[in-house]
Amino acid sequence: MTTQATTPSHPLLDAHAATLDEAAEALRTRSFYSRYPASPSPRVYGEGSAEAGQSAYEARLGAAFTELDDQPTTGERVGDEVSPYGPTLGITYPVLDLDEALPAARAAVRAWRDAGPRVRAAVCVEIIDRLNTRSFEMAGAVMHTSGQPFVMSFQAGGPEAQDRALEAVTAALVEQERLPSSVIWEKPAKGEPLRLQKDYKVVGRGVGLVIGCNTFPTWNAYPGIFASLATANAVVVKPHPRAILPLAITVAVCREVLAEAGFDKALVQLAADRDGGTLAKDLAERDEIAIIDYTGGPAFGAWLETEAAARGKLVYTEKAGVNTIVVDSTDSLRSTLGNLAFSLSLYSGQMCTAPQNIYVPKTGIDTDEGHLSADEFADRLGAAVARFNGDDAKAVEILGATVNDRVRSNVASLAEIAAEGEGRVVLDTRPVTHPSWPDAVVRTPGIVQLDVRHEDVYTQEYFGPVSFVIATESTEQSLAQLADTVAEHGAMTAAVYSTSEAVLEEAREAAADGGVALSENLNGQVFVNQTSAFSDYHGTGANPAANAAYSDAAFVANRFRVITSRRHV
Amino acid sequence: MTTQATTPSHPLLDAHAATLDEAAEALRTRSFYSRYPASPSPRVYGEGSAEAGQSAYEARLGAAFTELDDQPTTGERVGDEVSPYGPTLGITYPVLDLDEALPAARAAVRAWRDAGPRVRAAVCVEIIDRLNTRSFEMAGAVMHTSGQPFVMSFQAGGPEAQDRALEAVTAALVEQERLPSSVIWEKPAKGEPLRLQKDYKVVGRGVGLVIGCNTFPTWNAYPGIFASLATANAVVVKPHPRAILPLAITVAVCREVLAEAGFDKALVQLAADRDGGTLAKDLAERDEIAIIDYTGGPAFGAWLETEAAARGKLVYTEKAGVNTIVVDSTDSLRSTLGNLAFSLSLYSGQMCTAPQNIYVPKTGIDTDEGHLSADEFADRLGAAVARFNGDDAKAVEILGATVNDRVRSNVASLAEIAAEGEGRVVLDTRPVTHPSWPDAVVRTPGIVQLDVRHEDVYTQEYFGPVSFVIATESTEQSLAQLADTVAEHGAMTAAVYSTSEAVLEEAREAAADGGVALSENLNGQVFVNQTSAFSDYHGTGANPAANAAYSDAAFVANRFRVITSRRHV
Repeated sequence: MTTQATTPSHPLLDAHAATLDEAAEALRTRSFYSRYPASPSPRVYGEGSAEAGQSAYEARLGAAFTELDDQPTTGERVGDEVSPYGPTLGITYPVLDLDEALPAARAAVRAWRDAGPRVRAAVCVEIIDRLNTRSFEMAGAVMHTSGQPFVMSFQAGGPEAQDRALEAVTAALVEQERLPSSVIWEKPAKGEPLRLQKDYKVVGRGVGLVIGCNTFPTWNAYPGIFASLATANAVVVKPHPRAILPLAITVAVCREVLAEAGFDKALVQLAADRDGGTLAKDLAERDEIAIIDYTGGPAFGAWLETEAAARGKLVYTEKAGVNTIVVDSTDSLRSTLGNLAFSLSLYSGQMCTAPQNIYVPKTGIDTDEGHLSADEFADRLGAAVARFNGDDAKAVEILGATVNDRVRSNVASLAEIAAEGEGRVVLDTRPVTHPSWPDAVVRTPGIVQLDVRHEDVYTQEYFGPVSFVIATESTEQSLAQLADTVAEHGAMTAAVYSTSEAVLEEAREAAADGGVALSENLNGQVFVNQTSAFSDYHGTGANPAANAAYSDAAFVANRFRVITSRRHV
Repeated sequence: MTTQATTPSHPLLDAHAATLDEAAEALRTRSFYSRYPASPSPRVYGEGSAEAGQSAYEARLGAAFTELDDQPTTGERVGDEVSPYGPTLGITYPVLDLDEALPAARAAVRAWRDAGPRVRAAVCVEIIDRLNTRSFEMAGAVMHTSGQPFVMSFQAGGPEAQDRALEAVTAALVEQERLPSSVIWEKPAKGEPLRLQKDYKVVGRGVGLVIGCNTFPTWNAYPGIFASLATANAVVVKPHPRAILPLAITVAVCREVLAEAGFDKALVQLAADRDGGTLAKDLAERDEIAIIDYTGGPAFGAWLETEAAARGKLVYTEKAGVNTIVVDSTDSLRSTLGNLAFSLSLYSGQMCTAPQNIYVPKTGIDTDEGHLSADEFADRLGAAVARFNGDDAKAVEILGATVNDRVRSNVASLAEIAAEGEGRVVLDTRPVTHPSWPDAVVRTPGIVQLDVRHEDVYTQEYFGPVSFVIATESTEQSLAQLADTVAEHGAMTAAVYSTSEAVLEEAREAAADGGVALSENLNGQVFVNQTSAFSDYHGTGANPAANAAYSDAAFVANRFRVITSRRHV
């Protein structure tokens, strides 16, 4: 006999009950679900909302970000953000006083813990709903920190990030509610049965640290923030020093809603750092930090996976990899090339999910336009990418701006890379002048062709608009390379193009062996670099690119523990 | 729209469908459930089964254990087991050739992975059912490796371990089946909706290593073995060198059933080591090992939690702690003392769940027999324990035998411990001569009383029949000590005795703060050292004694990953 959960009452419970129920059902079925509309149309978000958001963003420039001045602070301020589109943001943020902030975070969790899973989930939904109303302001913040084009900044920085946040909240709630809050346990025994009441209490781990990245400041931070918060932890958000604003706005909204809901603002705090600072490491070494979510470069990610993990912290990472496509054959060459051209161009390949390595057999591929040699396929792909980016004004709305010097350096060294791999530059990169932002460094994708034997070249990650057409002995070898290079070097995505069901089946086995999700024959408006919350996992946790996936049970289940109390009744 | 899982067919699916369903329901409700009867009565297990099991055990003595000779082996044999009851077992086991065995384990997982979660679960149930038929043989093996008394060896080594195994299988199945095997995803779009079929495939991590302990060779190993196996991993079982036989029998049964079910025996292999060998560490350092389950001493446990975790391995540990009882008041003194006497005596306190530290306020406690000072309570407890173990022949059936020299040394140094803590020996230990096993070293529990300020003494774990009555300033201080010492030094169990609802509520908060399960006012036939599968978690994972709990979602969810493949339909 299971007694009903005695959920503490809270005004937000009713407000968000239906949302939590439909989100849980969506997570269970993994069919299409989105709470937050991706279209920036005024018909969806209301007339004037785009302009109001833009104004709100612009009002922040050159000024102190004051909404977080009630955090414990050392009194210093930091802020080095420069838009990849050119302008200096000139915004300063208070420096967090860790010796006050972390104990405050720990002290705040008791009431949050005692509120129970459903109240926490409802408060999180309220936060995310509130963030949704700020999506246009957020679009400006994301665009001018990441270099994403505007529409992408709105979508990936706003509603799509919000959907991933809701997914994490939902996964956390489902996992916490899998156990009853109380049960009467009755064991048959000689004479009277043994009867115990057992109460189960969810407790968090302590304080979660979320370390954000430069390219997707909100999208990659929200799953960790909301997974930790929903499971009764406090959260310290450490943004990338060049992408603070999106998470500063986020933290301010979190604190505003938490306070309104009767909880301590110290449950969510922002730890802004100067460029080149060591705050992420300093925080990761603190005893109060029990959970770390990280998106960023492999060096610090590896440090977290070894040193922080060795200190007993739960570490969830997303680092880097070599995303892979195997081309075997296609019955729709034009669509295949168009789909690939978009995937290679979107945000200048600066997505952790963008393809890099495209394997093609030297014997060539069969297509609906006849047999193509590997060279011919490479040339056709190069032409498709060039055509796709032929109009500067349109191209910049897909390419966005290059985010940093490493990306610019990668794309500028195509000829050297080709020489190192004894290959050829199939498509050279082209500088594009942004019509609105003349200081933005915009480059079209470059493609290098080389032989499969030059693994030392193409198994490195060239972040940004650099990809390889790699000539293999056969599709069999292409698939073996997919499995092997992904297992060794990691990947967030993989794809295959083939008209053969046998090849597709082998590709599924190769993807399972390598531990990467597989997209098959994407020829339309779905792209390998895009995943859908509640349906596609982002990452698998099964290869070195990421040790976790948004948002499976493993992403949430260990962020909380269960404490039982039992007594005779 | 979710399509139905296309579970591969297998003859064992139907056989165990009802069991898996009722076990899943039991896990969901956490009410009483047991598949394997704990009573060794011939009415339950059949006339002659006890004698047949005893004979099967005796037939193994002084001989080579040959059922595992088909494992890859170096040709050497090991086996140093000596019964805590006296006799040398004289059994030898083949030494595993790791360079052959680990690749074989990895090769075996593909078919096991492709069989799907439900087939794996059904095969696991078949294994556990088969183990149940060997429970009397196992009782002999557990008794003569751990020193447990016979009935406990049967129960904890047999059916109760089997119930924990089934619990792990069930938790793993539920978690894997939370996602559909396939879904049609349909996103509204201009014109035709976007439609994708997405298939989700569960893949294991690779090879799990399970490192067994001396005192509960099966009970503490089964959760890890079956959690890893059920989630598509292979398992290498590394028993404690002094408790190999119970896991050798287990592995032999696993392999027998796996082969009958059409799978590769290499999915489960035994890695027997000589006493003092380094095989556990050697295995933990191997690249093939992805998951480690460990029960044992804190030194190697800490190495695993740091060094092995730093190498990216999932590490689940149970080490040591100081189990704590807070006595505030009781309305049934006699029952309280009787319950505590049993908990302190059972298996000579050699359970990881046995109480060690009993806090009593110096101002004394109110009881139904009047107010007792802390000294009087300690004396009454000592008398109860002495009386409980007054009859040698009966006492040995509860005490069992001391398992090793460390336990013997702890219990022999009561006077020194008392002197170090400026306290007094409340109850000295007494050697007991076992009527059937004259070479067994059997000691009754000893109790030391000291002041709360001697934390350096009582926050060490004295494994075996040593406990402390610790005089505090108040129950408030007792509860603070509970929370603080558990959070710092760990504990598997905690209990409180109080007639005050306010004190009980404070105790629940202290237990939640310390991260330990709480038993309240146990006065009957439920004991603080006992947990019930499917209802009580064993450990919490929230304090240093153990980083995991049998068997919550976190214990199983990260042992597998999900690989998606998606395509237009």
